[in-house]
Amino acid sequence: MALIVQKFGGSSVANAECVNRVAGIVADTYAEGNDVVVVVSAQGDTTDDLIDKANEINPNHSRREHDMLVSAGEQISIALLAMALEKIGLPVISLLGWQAGFSTNSNHTFARIKKIEKERLMSELDQHKIIVVAGFQGLNKYDDITTLGRGGSDTSAVALAAALHADKCQIFTDVTGVYTADPRKVPGAVKLDEITYDEMLELASCGAQVLNNRSVEMAKKYNVNLEVLSSIKREPGTIVKEAIKLEKMLIRGVAKDNDVVRVSVLRLPDQPGIAFKLFSRLAAKNVNVDIILQSAGRDGTKDITFTVPLSAEDQAREAALAAFPDLTDDDFIVDAGVSKISIVGAGMETHPGTASQMFEALYDANINIQMISTSEIKISVLVDEKDADKAVSAVHESFFPED
Amino acid sequence: MALIVQKFGGSSVANAECVNRVAGIVADTYAEGNDVVVVVSAQGDTTDDLIDKANEINPNHSRREHDMLVSAGEQISIALLAMALEKIGLPVISLLGWQAGFSTNSNHTFARIKKIEKERLMSELDQHKIIVVAGFQGLNKYDDITTLGRGGSDTSAVALAAALHADKCQIFTDVTGVYTADPRKVPGAVKLDEITYDEMLELASCGAQVLNNRSVEMAKKYNVNLEVLSSIKREPGTIVKEAIKLEKMLIRGVAKDNDVVRVSVLRLPDQPGIAFKLFSRLAAKNVNVDIILQSAGRDGTKDITFTVPLSAEDQAREAALAAFPDLTDDDFIVDAGVSKISIVGAGMETHPGTASQMFEALYDANINIQMISTSEIKISVLVDEKDADKAVSAVHESFFPED
Repeated sequence: MALIVQKFGGSSVANAECVNRVAGIVADTYAEGNDVVVVVSAQGDTTDDLIDKANEINPNHSRREHDMLVSAGEQISIALLAMALEKIGLPVISLLGWQAGFSTNSNHTFARIKKIEKERLMSELDQHKIIVVAGFQGLNKYDDITTLGRGGSDTSAVALAAALHADKCQIFTDVTGVYTADPRKVPGAVKLDEITYDEMLELASCGAQVLNNRSVEMAKKYNVNLEVLSSIKREPGTIVKEAIKLEKMLIRGVAKDNDVVRVSVLRLPDQPGIAFKLFSRLAAKNVNVDIILQSAGRDGTKDITFTVPLSAEDQAREAALAAFPDLTDDDFIVDAGVSKISIVGAGMETHPGTASQMFEALYDANINIQMISTSEIKISVLVDEKDADKAVSAVHESFFPED
Repeated sequence: MALIVQKFGGSSVANAECVNRVAGIVADTYAEGNDVVVVVSAQGDTTDDLIDKANEINPNHSRREHDMLVSAGEQISIALLAMALEKIGLPVISLLGWQAGFSTNSNHTFARIKKIEKERLMSELDQHKIIVVAGFQGLNKYDDITTLGRGGSDTSAVALAAALHADKCQIFTDVTGVYTADPRKVPGAVKLDEITYDEMLELASCGAQVLNNRSVEMAKKYNVNLEVLSSIKREPGTIVKEAIKLEKMLIRGVAKDNDVVRVSVLRLPDQPGIAFKLFSRLAAKNVNVDIILQSAGRDGTKDITFTVPLSAEDQAREAALAAFPDLTDDDFIVDAGVSKISIVGAGMETHPGTASQMFEALYDANINIQMISTSEIKISVLVDEKDADKAVSAVHESFFPED
C-alpha cells in the first residue's frame, strides 16, 4: 500500500461539477488501496474576488489581515471536496493548514514552511481516512494565519509528501504534463515523459507556469517523486525526478516569459561597490532580479541593465533612486515591451553548439536579441515582445523539427 | 476607561459601505477612550451562499464539514473590518473564534461555549488594540472548528463580555431597539428604553427576532449589561438588564411567531407514560416543543396537541410513529397555517386581568383562539395565520392605546 499526495489547483475545483470530478480521481486512488492526502487551492477566482473586496475597503491593508482574508478560500474548497467524498461514502476529513501542522515563519503573504507537525495527520491516516488539506496556508509562532504566496499550494503538497515520506506527489493541472513548448501556441510541442528537477526549475523560472518553483526546489531537496498530470484527461503525465535516462533530446523545452521589464541605469560611476549598492536594495525589497548585464567602464562611467517582474518596476525605480540620489530621469530607462525566451535541458551542458543553434534560429527569423543570459542547463534571451511568439516557434522548430 | 463589546450582524457588514460605517462606530467608541472588542457575523448572504454550494455537492454532508465550510464566512468579515479600521489608522487585529480562545463542546452546528481562554485577548488589549473577533465559531477538544448555530454571534459577544467583565455589550441590529410590537406592522409600536432579561427571553421565544435567546440567557446568568441599538441611526437603544424601575406599563410587548406548526396525535391510549413516550423522542431529536395541550381521557383514549417549529414537522411525525407504531394517518394531524401571538411583561404577574384583557381584545376582533399557554410573564395564544396581523394590532391597541 502506497501513500499518495494529490494536489488540485483552483480551476480543478472551480464548481460543483469540478469538485465531483476531483472526488472521483481521489476515490479511485483510494480504492486501489492507497492512503491519500489531498491538497486543494481556493475555488476558481475566489482569491481574486476576496482581494478585490479588500482593495475596495483599503488597498493598503496589512499583510497579516490579507492572509486572514484569503486563507478563507481554501477553507471553503476543502470542506466542499470533503463533502463530495462523504457522498461517495468514503471516510474523509478536511484540515486547515494549521490543523495539518503547517508551521511557517512570519513573513505574511510570502511565508516559508518551517516544519510540519505530523501528529494529527498520522492519527487520521491510522484511521484510514482520506485527508483533504488546505494548501497555501500555515500558522506562525504567534498563532496567526500565514500564506505561502501564489502557487503555494504546490509547495504545500510537496512539503506534505516530504514530511509523510509519500511514495508519490501528483500535481493535477489543466495541462496533461510538461511540454517542450506551450502546446496552445506551438503546434509541434511534445509532451515529455520525464524531466529532471533542475530542468523543471529552469523551465518554471522561464515562464512555463506548470509548477511553482519553490515546490520543485523542495521536491529536489527531499527527493520527492513528482508527477504533473491532468485533472480532466486520465492519462500518465510527466514525471519530475533527480536523474533521467539519457535521451537523444538535447533540450527539454522552449519557454516564453512576458512578465518581465528591462531596466537600465546609465552613467553610473565606474568604481567598486556600485552593483552591490543597487542590488542589495532590490534584494531588501524582495525583488527577484533575473538577467543582469553590466557594460564595461568608459569615460569613468558604466551602465547596468537588468530585468525584473512587471510588478517590481516601481520598486526598481525606488531602489535605484535610493542607491544613487543624483540619478536623473534620463539615466533611468524602463522597457516593459520585452519578452524572455529560454531553452532548458540538462543535455546542453555537454553540447557546446546549443547556444549558437538558438541564436541562428533567431537570426534566421530576423529577431533581434537584446540581452543574453546562460546557466549550465538554460539559455535565455530577451527579445522585443512583439517577436516573442515567432521566436518560440523558430527555436522550437530548430530543436524539435516536425517529422 | 471602559471595556465595550460591540456586535454587528451580517447585514451591518454586507458590503464595503456597511463595513466602513461599522468601522466609524468602532472608531468613535475607541476615540472616547474605551477598549473595544468587536464581534462580527458573516457578510450578508455569505452563509446561505456557502450552504447552497454544499447542498449542490452533497445535501447530506456531515455537520463537521458544515462547520468547516460556513466558518469561513466570519473569517472574511473580520479581515475586512480590520482592514477598514487600519485605513482609519487605528491599531487593530482580527481573531478567529479559536484564536480568541473560544472553546466549545463537539456538538457541531449547535455547539455550546465551554470556556474562553483569555490570554491572547488580554495580550492584544494590553497593546491597546481594537480586537475584531469572528462570531458564531469556536474549537472543540479535537481542534476541529465548531459553530454555535444561527444567531450564535450574539452569544459570542455576550460570552466575550462576560469573560472580559466588559462594562457593556452592545448588539447592533437593523432596528433601533426593542419595540412593544413589530414597528413595520404596528404603527403604534413604542420603543422601550429598558427591558428585563426575562421579558427579553420571552419576547425572543415568541418570534421577536431582535436577540438570540441563548445570548440573553447568558447575559442574565453573568449579569452582562446589554444594549440593543441600530447600526444605521446613531441613537440610544434598549437596555436589557436584571431589574428595571417599575413603570405603569403592564406588558412589554406583543409578538407574532409564524414559524410554528400545530401537531395533533389523536386517540392515544389513556394510560400513564404516553406523553413521556412521545416527548422523549422529540427531545432526542433536538426538537423544541412549545405549547402542549392534552385532552382529558374519554372512551379510554386521549389526544395530545403541541406546537413545533415548521422545520421540525417531519421529525414530529417520525417521533410519533416511533412512539406509537399503530398510528394511522387519520390520527396524526398537522396544521402549518397557524401563528402564535404573545404578550410579555413582568408586570402581568401581579395583574390578574391581563389574560382576560388579551382574550377580550381578540374576541372584539372576532379572532378564534386555538390554544393558550401561559407563564409568569407571558401569555401566548395560537390563532389562524390569516388572523395573525389583525390579532397583533388588536392586542397592541388594547395594551398601548394610541393617544
